[in-house]
Amino acid sequence: MVLATAAAALCAYIAPAAAGSGIPEVKAYLNGVDAHSILAPSTLFVKIFGSIFGVAAGFVVGKEGPMVHTGACVASLLGQGGSRKYRLTWKWLRYFKNDRDRRDLITCGAAAGVAAAFRAPVGGVLFALEEAASWWRSALLWRTFFTTAVVAVVLRGFMVFCRGGKCGLFGEGGLIMFDVNSAKPTYSVPDLLAVIFLGVIGGIFGSLYNYLVDKVLRTYSIINERGPSLKVLLVITISLLTSCCSYGLPWLSRCIPCPAHLEDQCPTVGRTGNYKNFQCPPHHYNDLASLFMNTNDDAIRNLFSSGSVKEFQLSTLIVFFAAIYFLGIITYGIAVPSGLFIPVILAGASYGRLLGNLLGSLSDLDVGFFALLGAASFLGGTMRMTVSLCVILLELTNDLLMLPLVMLVLLISKTVADCFNKGVYDQIVKMKGLPYMEAHAEPYMRHLVASDVVSGPLVTFSGVEKVGNILHALKITRHNGFPVINEPPFSDAPELCGLVLRSHLLVLLKGKKFARQRVMTGTEMMSRFKAHDFAKAGSGKGVKLEDIDIKEDEMEMYVDLHPITNTSPYTVVETMSLAKAAVLFREVGLRHLLVVPKTPGRPPIVGILTRHDFMMEHILGLYPHFNPHK
Amino acid sequence: MVLATAAAALCAYIAPAAAGSGIPEVKAYLNGVDAHSILAPSTLFVKIFGSIFGVAAGFVVGKEGPMVHTGACVASLLGQGGSRKYRLTWKWLRYFKNDRDRRDLITCGAAAGVAAAFRAPVGGVLFALEEAASWWRSALLWRTFFTTAVVAVVLRGFMVFCRGGKCGLFGEGGLIMFDVNSAKPTYSVPDLLAVIFLGVIGGIFGSLYNYLVDKVLRTYSIINERGPSLKVLLVITISLLTSCCSYGLPWLSRCIPCPAHLEDQCPTVGRTGNYKNFQCPPHHYNDLASLFMNTNDDAIRNLFSSGSVKEFQLSTLIVFFAAIYFLGIITYGIAVPSGLFIPVILAGASYGRLLGNLLGSLSDLDVGFFALLGAASFLGGTMRMTVSLCVILLELTNDLLMLPLVMLVLLISKTVADCFNKGVYDQIVKMKGLPYMEAHAEPYMRHLVASDVVSGPLVTFSGVEKVGNILHALKITRHNGFPVINEPPFSDAPELCGLVLRSHLLVLLKGKKFARQRVMTGTEMMSRFKAHDFAKAGSGKGVKLEDIDIKEDEMEMYVDLHPITNTSPYTVVETMSLAKAAVLFREVGLRHLLVVPKTPGRPPIVGILTRHDFMMEHILGLYPHFNPHK
Repeated sequence: MVLATAAAALCAYIAPAAAGSGIPEVKAYLNGVDAHSILAPSTLFVKIFGSIFGVAAGFVVGKEGPMVHTGACVASLLGQGGSRKYRLTWKWLRYFKNDRDRRDLITCGAAAGVAAAFRAPVGGVLFALEEAASWWRSALLWRTFFTTAVVAVVLRGFMVFCRGGKCGLFGEGGLIMFDVNSAKPTYSVPDLLAVIFLGVIGGIFGSLYNYLVDKVLRTYSIINERGPSLKVLLVITISLLTSCCSYGLPWLSRCIPCPAHLEDQCPTVGRTGNYKNFQCPPHHYNDLASLFMNTNDDAIRNLFSSGSVKEFQLSTLIVFFAAIYFLGIITYGIAVPSGLFIPVILAGASYGRLLGNLLGSLSDLDVGFFALLGAASFLGGTMRMTVSLCVILLELTNDLLMLPLVMLVLLISKTVADCFNKGVYDQIVKMKGLPYMEAHAEPYMRHLVASDVVSGPLVTFSGVEKVGNILHALKITRHNGFPVINEPPFSDAPELCGLVLRSHLLVLLKGKKFARQRVMTGTEMMSRFKAHDFAKAGSGKGVKLEDIDIKEDEMEMYVDLHPITNTSPYTVVETMSLAKAAVLFREVGLRHLLVVPKTPGRPPIVGILTRHDFMMEHILGLYPHFNPHK
Repeated sequence: MVLATAAAALCAYIAPAAAGSGIPEVKAYLNGVDAHSILAPSTLFVKIFGSIFGVAAGFVVGKEGPMVHTGACVASLLGQGGSRKYRLTWKWLRYFKNDRDRRDLITCGAAAGVAAAFRAPVGGVLFALEEAASWWRSALLWRTFFTTAVVAVVLRGFMVFCRGGKCGLFGEGGLIMFDVNSAKPTYSVPDLLAVIFLGVIGGIFGSLYNYLVDKVLRTYSIINERGPSLKVLLVITISLLTSCCSYGLPWLSRCIPCPAHLEDQCPTVGRTGNYKNFQCPPHHYNDLASLFMNTNDDAIRNLFSSGSVKEFQLSTLIVFFAAIYFLGIITYGIAVPSGLFIPVILAGASYGRLLGNLLGSLSDLDVGFFALLGAASFLGGTMRMTVSLCVILLELTNDLLMLPLVMLVLLISKTVADCFNKGVYDQIVKMKGLPYMEAHAEPYMRHLVASDVVSGPLVTFSGVEKVGNILHALKITRHNGFPVINEPPFSDAPELCGLVLRSHLLVLLKGKKFARQRVMTGTEMMSRFKAHDFAKAGSGKGVKLEDIDIKEDEMEMYVDLHPITNTSPYTVVETMSLAKAAVLFREVGLRHLLVVPKTPGRPPIVGILTRHDFMMEHILGLYPHFNPHK
């Protein structure tokens, strides 16, 4: 409880953004959503220590999600040139000060997190590809590959250094965490049918898991909103409940005599291991305690172990499965960094082993292998990944010959679960209200055109604008982009010059290079700025409106916006199908899309589309009679 | 020579498109290049049998590239609803009659080809992702994954059926072709240095391979252009040369006594195996003959075999490496279906084993594992893939513990080779003159705007156009898309209505639903057509201009183009940066991009950009003074 309280206090008082898995937030960031303090140094600190405390406290949580988030935070810190607040800055890092490089770095960080958590370098690359990243280029592929190769080499170096238990539990199992290579690779038609059955049921359980996690999260968010002390109280409650289960439930199981001819010690007392004594007479073990009172890794290893059909009783597996399934659901969402992988793998493995025991007469497959397939089916059912999960499981278990069956189970459970709801990370992204752009346009968008969803008053600037007007516009709106319109005498008729960003305007105003006349002073003015003055600052950094102090007489002066205007903004005609505009917005990775009029003789711009204008909530707010699925 | 002549004759006389690997063509198709007869049924037929004959003739060619092409051809056949010419059609396949589904199917086909060739289901998915596909969506990911899962299950079914050598060499080695799982997973700093050295040299050899293949291909294309008989003659010459090497070179090697305590038979006579007798006294074997006079798979297995340091002499490895390296180079490009994977793996494995023998005193790694790393370095140096090669090698050898070293070698050799030239498939695509759109815009494009590269006379149609005009335009141009402009009385001023496709115009003209007056007859007219009349036909299929028979009086009639006009074409303003237009074109996957004027009062369209307008040759033709690298 002390550890749980420490984790909760860190989370509740220092960095609330560090609670939960972190994968949904990283996913949203890579989609273009700059949520506040998601990747801040304080979040990084709390994520690391909160995760250690949370896992050590015995919660049914994993370290994988937090490690992905940790990797992303470290990458973000590098991407914004270190932290000025904590006096950790490097000059050469300024080359990464742009959206694209920062996004690439964070993708690599997420891949490194998975690679380190599962000791699965290729799995990490594929996770970053399949789940995390929204845009993919071949350069990014080999950058993540390089990152995870370095992770693998460093991990192995530490393992060699830590050989012989010098570093506690670190490095246990070597590079392959749950080696099941001994299972024999034969299967026949009844086995295949059993596996398909397992996949279908696993898919149903997986989607039910998502449904319940969503409900619990909504309930918790009501509690969590009432203040940090209630957050801590909730964590303590769940901690008590978990402890009750871990220490109370093993009393339900009876003692089993140790099997003869074991390499392992039996019973194990005072250390992590396969056979826990737990109040049993000597040379007996309690099988339920062997699962509950172990590290999660060892519990998974026990469930995956082959050639030990009788090790766990049927009732043990049922109790353990039910307990872990529901503890996993009620634990996610409390103010502790908590990964979803381990609870899902644990629940899935016990479900698979249970089913393997039940179907023992029908199928020749080893129960340990059934446990692996059960874990695959739960993972497929909740997370809906395919290739990356398959490779991660392969790298976890070194079981290449069973690959076709694992692939089959993943596909079946994903397909079954997709009938009911979305993947768990997508659900969380949606629940948190992050404006995530899907890769495809929604069907109802086909019935609308771009100008239908343009909203809000449009604020435009002249090519050479009065300082007062700019300051006023920056104050009264929260827009991040403003169209610039050239008017006579700079052009024959009003015409669209381009788009100027709020952050660049702020830098320009701070520089105070104004002119008294309405003239173009571009080149002369820009010689007073350096290129990296306009580089993208870290989130929450950069010039703020409050930093700018403009005097009364400067308000009436003019500033030339041409040098900082993007003169090639992407545009669509107002009659463009909204679905096509959404594809353009998403595929090219835009933040602003200008809508221009179709017929001449009108102002040269109709409006700006941003990410929020494509969200279903916005569109259904404007057109409530629309059926979102048609 | 009989087999070689048969393969060459098939290729030269029936389907010239079947020569070579086929991967570059598939890659170009998935990028949007509809090259003629690349995926035709005749190509499929020749590819299958030509590849069998070619490999059986003993050429230094692989079956992997041809299998990818075969998979793509089968997928294309399904995608165009079967073949009408060969009376193989299915009605339900008409749902795939559109560009996107066809492209998805062909991606799946390519993945299935790799999965079947290497028995590597996950490797197949990654190959399709990294090398073949130009656009990627998560739906495509699990579709390819499903395809390769089916391939794995079917393969395994056949292997079980063929157990005991019922089907010749099929299924040898099981699902893992070159199992080296026995190698012990320890390495230290000198090993790492040796591996880095191996990677650097492998990268240099790999890029040299690409350079020489390119030169040889250019020479051969001069010979091949002179007619099919010269093609066959060239194949026979190379066949003779290969035979001379295979039968002549082993005489250079001396006989070695069989090692004691072997599981294998030694020497093997009359069947494929590890120790070839080849004119040696009994209980002796010729090590060079053991490499040359084997199937390629067995030669690779021999080179990868661990725990047999002394099996091959140093001189043997040098001779074999040199012979295979140059035979591989001069064989690619002859009129035979020929994959590049196997020659590269063979050359790389012998190079790696050679280096392992030389560095034996410095490094503790097994020479068999050195051979694997050598193969990885050559593959990385020629093909420049990373993740997919890594997973393919993992699935070939089942050696998870050595994964970090394989990743390292792949990255090093790719990086080194990238300093010299492009990947071999990219080179071939370029040499064949296929207009491949790169994922990124070239730097020099930043100095141009969209209207700078618009070329050719622009042909536009009215919303309601005279039949004669349309027919004339279709005859004198080869454009595939025409802008449609609404003019008074259908609008106040001329305005851009949209884009109409040649194929749709041809269907419309064939239907002969014309009107005597210049009026909009859209809805009434379209009731006479069915939706799938306008579905995309297979390549080379569909209505042709010659099929249309318009009478003299019909020439003066009108047809309403509005129903078949795409009213939401993507447009850019003429002053848009060409680099940004290229990004839009590539990311959204367009075939036509309309360029509209910036200022009002001019015709509503400036020109159309197609794929060819973005090619470096075209741009440098217009602006010869440009430096293409700046």
